[in-house]
Amino acid sequence: MSGTGPGQCPPLCAADVERLAAAGLPAEVWDFVAGGSGDESTQAANRAALDRLRLLPRILSGTGEPDPSGSLLGGPVAMPAVVAPMAYQRLLHPDGELAAARAAARAQVPYVICTLSSFTLEEIAAVGGTRWFQLYWLRDRGRLLDLVRRAEAAGCEALVVTVDVPVMGRRLRDMRNGFALPASVTAANFGAEPLPATHTRLAGASAVATHTGLAFEPALGWADLAWLRENTTLPLVLKGVLDPRDAARAAELGAAAVVVSNHGGRQFPGAVASVTALPPVVDAVAGRCSVLLDSGVRSGTDVLRALACGADGVMYGRPVLWGLAVDGEAGVALVLDLLRTELREALLLSGCPDLAAARELTAVFG
Amino acid sequence: MSGTGPGQCPPLCAADVERLAAAGLPAEVWDFVAGGSGDESTQAANRAALDRLRLLPRILSGTGEPDPSGSLLGGPVAMPAVVAPMAYQRLLHPDGELAAARAAARAQVPYVICTLSSFTLEEIAAVGGTRWFQLYWLRDRGRLLDLVRRAEAAGCEALVVTVDVPVMGRRLRDMRNGFALPASVTAANFGAEPLPATHTRLAGASAVATHTGLAFEPALGWADLAWLRENTTLPLVLKGVLDPRDAARAAELGAAAVVVSNHGGRQFPGAVASVTALPPVVDAVAGRCSVLLDSGVRSGTDVLRALACGADGVMYGRPVLWGLAVDGEAGVALVLDLLRTELREALLLSGCPDLAAARELTAVFG
Amino acid sequence: MSGTGPGQCPPLCAADVERLAAAGLPAEVWDFVAGGSGDESTQAANRAALDRLRLLPRILSGTGEPDPSGSLLGGPVAMPAVVAPMAYQRLLHPDGELAAARAAARAQVPYVICTLSSFTLEEIAAVGGTRWFQLYWLRDRGRLLDLVRRAEAAGCEALVVTVDVPVMGRRLRDMRNGFALPASVTAANFGAEPLPATHTRLAGASAVATHTGLAFEPALGWADLAWLRENTTLPLVLKGVLDPRDAARAAELGAAAVVVSNHGGRQFPGAVASVTALPPVVDAVAGRCSVLLDSGVRSGTDVLRALACGADGVMYGRPVLWGLAVDGEAGVALVLDLLRTELREALLLSGCPDLAAARELTAVFG
Amino acid sequence: MSGTGPGQCPPLCAADVERLAAAGLPAEVWDFVAGGSGDESTQAANRAALDRLRLLPRILSGTGEPDPSGSLLGGPVAMPAVVAPMAYQRLLHPDGELAAARAAARAQVPYVICTLSSFTLEEIAAVGGTRWFQLYWLRDRGRLLDLVRRAEAAGCEALVVTVDVPVMGRRLRDMRNGFALPASVTAANFGAEPLPATHTRLAGASAVATHTGLAFEPALGWADLAWLRENTTLPLVLKGVLDPRDAARAAELGAAAVVVSNHGGRQFPGAVASVTALPPVVDAVAGRCSVLLDSGVRSGTDVLRALACGADGVMYGRPVLWGLAVDGEAGVALVLDLLRTELREALLLSGCPDLAAARELTAVFG
Repeated sequence: MSGTGPGQCPPLCAADVERLAAAGLPAEVWDFVAGGSGDESTQAANRAALDRLRLLPRILSGTGEPDPSGSLLGGPVAMPAVVAPMAYQRLLHPDGELAAARAAARAQVPYVICTLSSFTLEEIAAVGGTRWFQLYWLRDRGRLLDLVRRAEAAGCEALVVTVDVPVMGRRLRDMRNGFALPASVTAANFGAEPLPATHTRLAGASAVATHTGLAFEPALGWADLAWLRENTTLPLVLKGVLDPRDAARAAELGAAAVVVSNHGGRQFPGAVASVTALPPVVDAVAGRCSVLLDSGVRSGTDVLRALACGADGVMYGRPVLWGLAVDGEAGVALVLDLLRTELREALLLSGCPDLAAARELTAVFG
Repeated sequence: MSGTGPGQCPPLCAADVERLAAAGLPAEVWDFVAGGSGDESTQAANRAALDRLRLLPRILSGTGEPDPSGSLLGGPVAMPAVVAPMAYQRLLHPDGELAAARAAARAQVPYVICTLSSFTLEEIAAVGGTRWFQLYWLRDRGRLLDLVRRAEAAGCEALVVTVDVPVMGRRLRDMRNGFALPASVTAANFGAEPLPATHTRLAGASAVATHTGLAFEPALGWADLAWLRENTTLPLVLKGVLDPRDAARAAELGAAAVVVSNHGGRQFPGAVASVTALPPVVDAVAGRCSVLLDSGVRSGTDVLRALACGADGVMYGRPVLWGLAVDGEAGVALVLDLLRTELREALLLSGCPDLAAARELTAVFG
Repeated sequence: MSGTGPGQCPPLCAADVERLAAAGLPAEVWDFVAGGSGDESTQAANRAALDRLRLLPRILSGTGEPDPSGSLLGGPVAMPAVVAPMAYQRLLHPDGELAAARAAARAQVPYVICTLSSFTLEEIAAVGGTRWFQLYWLRDRGRLLDLVRRAEAAGCEALVVTVDVPVMGRRLRDMRNGFALPASVTAANFGAEPLPATHTRLAGASAVATHTGLAFEPALGWADLAWLRENTTLPLVLKGVLDPRDAARAAELGAAAVVVSNHGGRQFPGAVASVTALPPVVDAVAGRCSVLLDSGVRSGTDVLRALACGADGVMYGRPVLWGLAVDGEAGVALVLDLLRTELREALLLSGCPDLAAARELTAVFG
Repeated sequence: MSGTGPGQCPPLCAADVERLAAAGLPAEVWDFVAGGSGDESTQAANRAALDRLRLLPRILSGTGEPDPSGSLLGGPVAMPAVVAPMAYQRLLHPDGELAAARAAARAQVPYVICTLSSFTLEEIAAVGGTRWFQLYWLRDRGRLLDLVRRAEAAGCEALVVTVDVPVMGRRLRDMRNGFALPASVTAANFGAEPLPATHTRLAGASAVATHTGLAFEPALGWADLAWLRENTTLPLVLKGVLDPRDAARAAELGAAAVVVSNHGGRQFPGAVASVTALPPVVDAVAGRCSVLLDSGVRSGTDVLRALACGADGVMYGRPVLWGLAVDGEAGVALVLDLLRTELREALLLSGCPDLAAARELTAVFG
């Protein structure tokens, strides 16, 4: 896996970028990015399941230049990937979400603006490109609707409703670190003033979790989703679906997509690996809505794995933060370019001229 | 799994408490608590099976405050957990069973008083709370019945008959250590005088095992259970059931509950992982009696795993001893509080408003 | 698995004896005993399969003193175990086979005298106890029949025909060591003079393998077995059967027993784990002959595993050599006593009053 | 697996040769030989699947001298193995392909001359023995046909069309090393002058991959194969088939053989282990063409595994390069002799008089 010396060699895979990011970030920021909830076994399960999923490549496709482009929620994408919603990106680089969104726009993949972005959604949307807005359900429904209206006004093309965070999972690293946001990083969508809860260090507690508990509605239900459905014209994406019964219900409700995700191992600590949950979800929605895979994706090969399991694409998370930490916009561009390069190669090497062909590949658990 | 530094951070999970206990206890006491029989593979199997059991959380339950409370043997519990019977708790802290029982009472979970408790059952029962009495079947049936009568008189609400200790398993650590009880710790239910067998050090032998062999009846049979059934009004709980044929027979005999357990890996060294044995037992009893899972439970997620496999609750063992060793009653309270916090979070994060919902979760072996 | 200090503690399990033997033997003798063929993956597979085979113990048998005794080939045994045939036991102790056979006789288990014993079969048989004779098929049929007649005359009660050594497997350790027998150890059944082939050191070759190639018939076939069947009154045991088709044929031929064995991982280096092969063999012979498990057995729990899979007993190999190396007859006695102690305990802890009950246990691959 | 000291012991298995080669080669050449694409998980999967595939040997075959010879593509072979096509063998030894081909001829196994050989195909063919020619599909069809004619003229007996290299996989070791060919090693079939692309070092890129991209046709399709079929009388072998649908199509097209291969883990980085893909391919071609296994084969036991899974033989790759690096022709001869020795032993120890018997062995995934 390693060569005999890196020399001046640029990063060649996401793991290279990860190492650079880990070496450069303050330890507690690294822990905030890298950590999961509880025993972190869900993260390990995500990778183990992806690693064991082996594909049977095809041959002699007759196409030398496969096309990794496609469409997601009706819009064109250069590859079937979306930059996942991730909070407080200024923790990693002063340009934070602006840098990441610019790189996503250049790479022609949607960027999901987070409710907890450290620039305002309007500032991020002004960067251009396809942007979706991720919604944490605020306890105050007036403010919630205000956020939705702002996202609509800013040209966001979808609402990604996170459904797996009734509370924040017990992320022990953050709790051990007494992690809190530095003064320079705030939840910008909630006003210019720092929210005290997110900045107060407390031994054994994560300030970010404390704030989440104060601000977000834990009792979200299907009726709330239906209400939102009536109160926006934007397509709804449900992020955090693992049980096929829930996927079917989301499709019936008219969701445009479900994201099969365990929140990168950061929420329920006993959750199934996301890719293990994927095929039953694909079967359950039966084409009524799109399906994205999130949690553990680290390469173009992983994207192909997701497609072979029936997904329409993936959300790409932590590697984007690694790139951002290493070199701002250029770092994110590098990470997204690597992903596209790997995916293009994976398509070519597996005899797939396009994404539709990729979905016909056979996958075995080896 | 680890943060960058513990600082003044309190224990955040059972493993944290375990580390503190291991560091503070005399080595041979630690071995007595931590060890299993034979090659200790049963302990490893318990954890491996639980770790591989992954759940499919549900979403959008509409409930922000799940209710981890329920009832066990007809009595209310704050969570579906029982402090498992464990001998000689004064080995870990001078307050021994009194401290543990007080913490259990405060946490509103049943505490199982052990035949081999180091305070008398009456002293422990006086602490209050729900207490059950664990019965090792004495060779002397008169003394056995006397113990039962004392348990009844002390307000114990169930008899937990341990059925997997015809003899004590070969616990090699204790044998290597020539482990014997210190003079300060005695089998209090058998009188104020120390029993010589439990205090005599012998190379290559465990004094505790020697005493068990002298005092307890190895030839216990179903007819004895039936006799006990006739001689007490207390509900009977059979602890140590793994084969579904035995579970069915226990239900037919009128047992109130069976505990699916391999005695924490301390008895038959080739036993199946307890959680692997659980679903067939649930099927076999078919609702005729309750089913508890014991052996290997270390977190609220594990409790959810047990419920998803059809159990009514769990017995919680070694972590209680760890807490007791670290800080007496407060340590046990901490451990039980962690368990409830984790379980509450696990319910919330898996979209379960209550324990009944948890039993509808899908579990996969991943 | 380990206690905090061994002190004066005697060995408590076979692995303890193994450690002592490994520390005390010359390296090349240890390699000869411990090694397997090729990549030694078959040895690893033997243990992995046994370790993963988990049993569901029964409860409340009503018997406090289980009976591990039984019969093998019509003769009584104190436990269902046979000391496996192993060559050149004087390598391990000056008393070699005499010591091991004496210990076996005391333990009331059959001892299999090896064609390549370092005392004559008559000397070993004179020790008493139940002895079987292991036959390597000599190229010279006259000498072969002579061996059979000697075994009959010496009171051997069965002929164990090794069928998995057409040549000796490539045991790389011995080849690297250029292993040869010391002058003090000879193939005593072939006369008082050392055979040059077994004593000549050659880089990259095992002198023992060289001799085997010279002396033994590689082209053994079913017709030869039938011929032997006609030329002895002794029951025939086929050792080295893994394919159920061969087991069925052996039963049809009138074999008294088959031994499911991969020669302790010393012959075909890609062989299946012996316990994996056991259940199909049991099914194939359908009670027409006995079935023993060999290769990897290290404890009484393993014996119970074999019984639960349908075997009538086990052959016990390397641990006997470890005991012999450590303390001659007393060491072998210790090892056999440990096995019986463990088996007795395993029966008691799994609720089995006798061996028949053990065969009704449920085994799962966990 | 290791003895107590190698002394003057010659290599006893391929891994011994590998260690010698690794110690003697420049690091970047070793990386070029040893490396795979991406995370190198495909290489690991190849070995893991082979290691877990365990065979049930037969007994009492009645044959003491098994015959490992057979025929491949109608020609006799001393064992069912072919030296796999591997580029630029002068990297490993000045005699390069000449030495390897000589050793193959002596061993009576086909040698596959590579399009990217570092001697001309005519020079290599002049060595004698059975030679096949491996074809990378040149972008220039005139030059492609010229290569085919040269191969025909040189007496090659088959064309091995590599179908899994539309581009070269991302071999991160080579990219990190900025690997390029030394001036002394050229693609001899393309003329005496070094091709600039293969010799230009560039950080983060493999010069070999660059040249491959320039010279070879990525858009190869089934129609091209049909065209080739019409334009040569040589039997066609498709190398790089994993999906049974492609295998069936190759058989329908009249291919003489398919090689189940993931290019030793050097191409598609998420590919299935080759031996996992083998049985479905065997079923799909249903005897209409031969099937060879490539990727991960390291021993005669592996050859037997392949046969037991229905293959007609194997391609043997990296070990040949290891032997070449260690001692030129003699090193390759050693490696091939080891393989035949191991295979002969494996046949004998598994009771197979010949290759047909080997195909009747039962394999289990243990």
